[in-house]
Amino acid sequence: MITLSSDFGDHYPAAMRGVLLRRTDARLVDVSHDLPRGDIRGSAFWLRFLLPEFPPAVHLVVVDPGVGTDRAAIVLRVGGHALVGPDNGVLIPAARAISPTAVPGTDGPISTTATEEIDAFRIRADEPASQTFHGRDVFAPAAATVQELGVDAAESAPLLEPITELVGYSLPSPESNSDTAHGEVLVVDGFGNVITNVSGDFLAGADTVRVNGDTTPVGSTFGSVPEGKRLVTVGSHGNIECDVNNGRGDEAFTLEAGDPIRIER
Amino acid sequence: MITLSSDFGDHYPAAMRGVLLRRTDARLVDVSHDLPRGDIRGSAFWLRFLLPEFPPAVHLVVVDPGVGTDRAAIVLRVGGHALVGPDNGVLIPAARAISPTAVPGTDGPISTTATEEIDAFRIRADEPASQTFHGRDVFAPAAATVQELGVDAAESAPLLEPITELVGYSLPSPESNSDTAHGEVLVVDGFGNVITNVSGDFLAGADTVRVNGDTTPVGSTFGSVPEGKRLVTVGSHGNIECDVNNGRGDEAFTLEAGDPIRIER
Amino acid sequence: MITLSSDFGDHYPAAMRGVLLRRTDARLVDVSHDLPRGDIRGSAFWLRFLLPEFPPAVHLVVVDPGVGTDRAAIVLRVGGHALVGPDNGVLIPAARAISPTAVPGTDGPISTTATEEIDAFRIRADEPASQTFHGRDVFAPAAATVQELGVDAAESAPLLEPITELVGYSLPSPESNSDTAHGEVLVVDGFGNVITNVSGDFLAGADTVRVNGDTTPVGSTFGSVPEGKRLVTVGSHGNIECDVNNGRGDEAFTLEAGDPIRIER
Repeated sequence: MITLSSDFGDHYPAAMRGVLLRRTDARLVDVSHDLPRGDIRGSAFWLRFLLPEFPPAVHLVVVDPGVGTDRAAIVLRVGGHALVGPDNGVLIPAARAISPTAVPGTDGPISTTATEEIDAFRIRADEPASQTFHGRDVFAPAAATVQELGVDAAESAPLLEPITELVGYSLPSPESNSDTAHGEVLVVDGFGNVITNVSGDFLAGADTVRVNGDTTPVGSTFGSVPEGKRLVTVGSHGNIECDVNNGRGDEAFTLEAGDPIRIER
Repeated sequence: MITLSSDFGDHYPAAMRGVLLRRTDARLVDVSHDLPRGDIRGSAFWLRFLLPEFPPAVHLVVVDPGVGTDRAAIVLRVGGHALVGPDNGVLIPAARAISPTAVPGTDGPISTTATEEIDAFRIRADEPASQTFHGRDVFAPAAATVQELGVDAAESAPLLEPITELVGYSLPSPESNSDTAHGEVLVVDGFGNVITNVSGDFLAGADTVRVNGDTTPVGSTFGSVPEGKRLVTVGSHGNIECDVNNGRGDEAFTLEAGDPIRIER
Repeated sequence: MITLSSDFGDHYPAAMRGVLLRRTDARLVDVSHDLPRGDIRGSAFWLRFLLPEFPPAVHLVVVDPGVGTDRAAIVLRVGGHALVGPDNGVLIPAARAISPTAVPGTDGPISTTATEEIDAFRIRADEPASQTFHGRDVFAPAAATVQELGVDAAESAPLLEPITELVGYSLPSPESNSDTAHGEVLVVDGFGNVITNVSGDFLAGADTVRVNGDTTPVGSTFGSVPEGKRLVTVGSHGNIECDVNNGRGDEAFTLEAGDPIRIER
């Protein structure tokens, strides 16, 4: 199975599908082609949320604002999965989330030692057909190769070279004490839900909190407040969200991706 | 085969795909993830239009504005298909359309008697992992279970409990006589075509009708009027549409979902 | 394998998927359902770019502004592929690109002689169920039939009739000499990249060019200019693009599909 993720929107994902299908009969499954464009933080959040839901697979990921520069193309092998994409950090939080020995909630600098159970490889691609579409010309062929060889035998691929250094990336951590969390908006989803980097544990037992100074009810689900009203809840990813029941939290809270957020109980 | 329908837009459907693929090798087919958000009427229309096109399958449907409240999670079995989703009425018109004994065009209150050939089950899900994403935590696991057991053996699943009462739902019916139909706009599609609840039969033999008072040509296809001109036609669902050839009917007729519409011949 | 392409956006593609799956177990792969709506030129560009990436397949293509008029429904067989869609020209550039004997870069009037290795058939469909959705009622059933018979045996289908005349279509050609190319914008992609019909060869060796009079750097990739800056590059389709690094070329260059463009070196 090969999953496909990108920030391409429409049209270009089909070129990757075609390249894959010329080389493998594997099942193809779309994760998303609307990852936040060129945004490592937001894309890394979604990939960390979504890829661990899948059974072991080859995950082709193209969020690649540095396409055509000298950033490397890599394969990470972890927990029976292979992640194929650019060496710009976007794969790292998902790889750590998949790792059976990773400590949940820790997103520290990546280490490719055995304790993380992550193997890393560089994809040799000296003369790709284009400098602007490595999803088609570099990453998809590499993903098909890993799929056909089997994830466990990836090192037998001549185009893969073991490496020990990667561009690290961690999702930003909040600064919290028992009363106050200083966090950040990671993404706004399509419903307008404002997803922060503050763990839902911070809300335990609270009926209300202040969000950037404004008192807001804490609810276990959207329906715990009337339609159109604001609430703070724990999203399905485990982090605090600022939402509106049947409305847009980003508009009601005037928040967007990257904004700082202060939550007080 | 499992089909997937939701009002999630992007990102969240992938979590359901992953959950399904961890539990079943069945083919997954997307119906739509842009059903009208939180809109039972509009979503029920599209599901009634689209699901009967499929061969017998498990249809996972998540349009669930009441997620996390005490609305039940259900499975409907009808005509070799299984529909899995919330007990809020959104599944009912599609289930009746699939039923081999349903009377076409009647969308009355649901009955689970043998004459409708619809069996209904409640999904036991006492402690889902989240209160905001039952698509991932309740409905997708139940759909995978029904798929793996086989639709005909669904009752052998410990998590399914036969029930006889459901939340009913009917698409609104027009009030018509031979001269005038008082109907309603069910949805506006992505082309801007205004899809009403008035049966195309009402147009039989007419060359023009009045739509909310304005005389409009009746055509068998968009090309029966010049580009940019308004027409009334019978859509591929059998209902009357208010359209513009190569343009947007919703703008030309100033109509949106839920609006009343009066058609006179 | 059956690929699906249309300008339908959402909802309607699912009806075609259902129709296909009632008739065949073949793999279905989406190419795009956001082809430029009713736009033969733009859709033909994307299809010529994307379909040749696929292994031999049945390609169902519905960009059909003349649905319900007397335009024919056709199947083109070329290079082991079958293209199924309306006889309005939209299939022609892709068919020629797939043809093993076509001369690259020539998009002249179609000929169905053996030298082009394109066989053409008309789909008999005298009484389709609708006049507005031939994707569901004519093209998808024909695609399933060709898939089940096998592309090489398509002529054995009673619903296919060999023909020798087609509606031709060529993507517009630029007028170029060694100093100046007078071209046209074919499409703007979702990133805002302005894709022209001028071959990338025109840029060979140039460091800057003038685009409609404004001097613009030529780069091999987006990152060859600072973020937010304009550049001209060769896209992954081989044509000249007017882009902005991490921004929208269409806004920076004030260009949209169909606009003339003058590039001078």
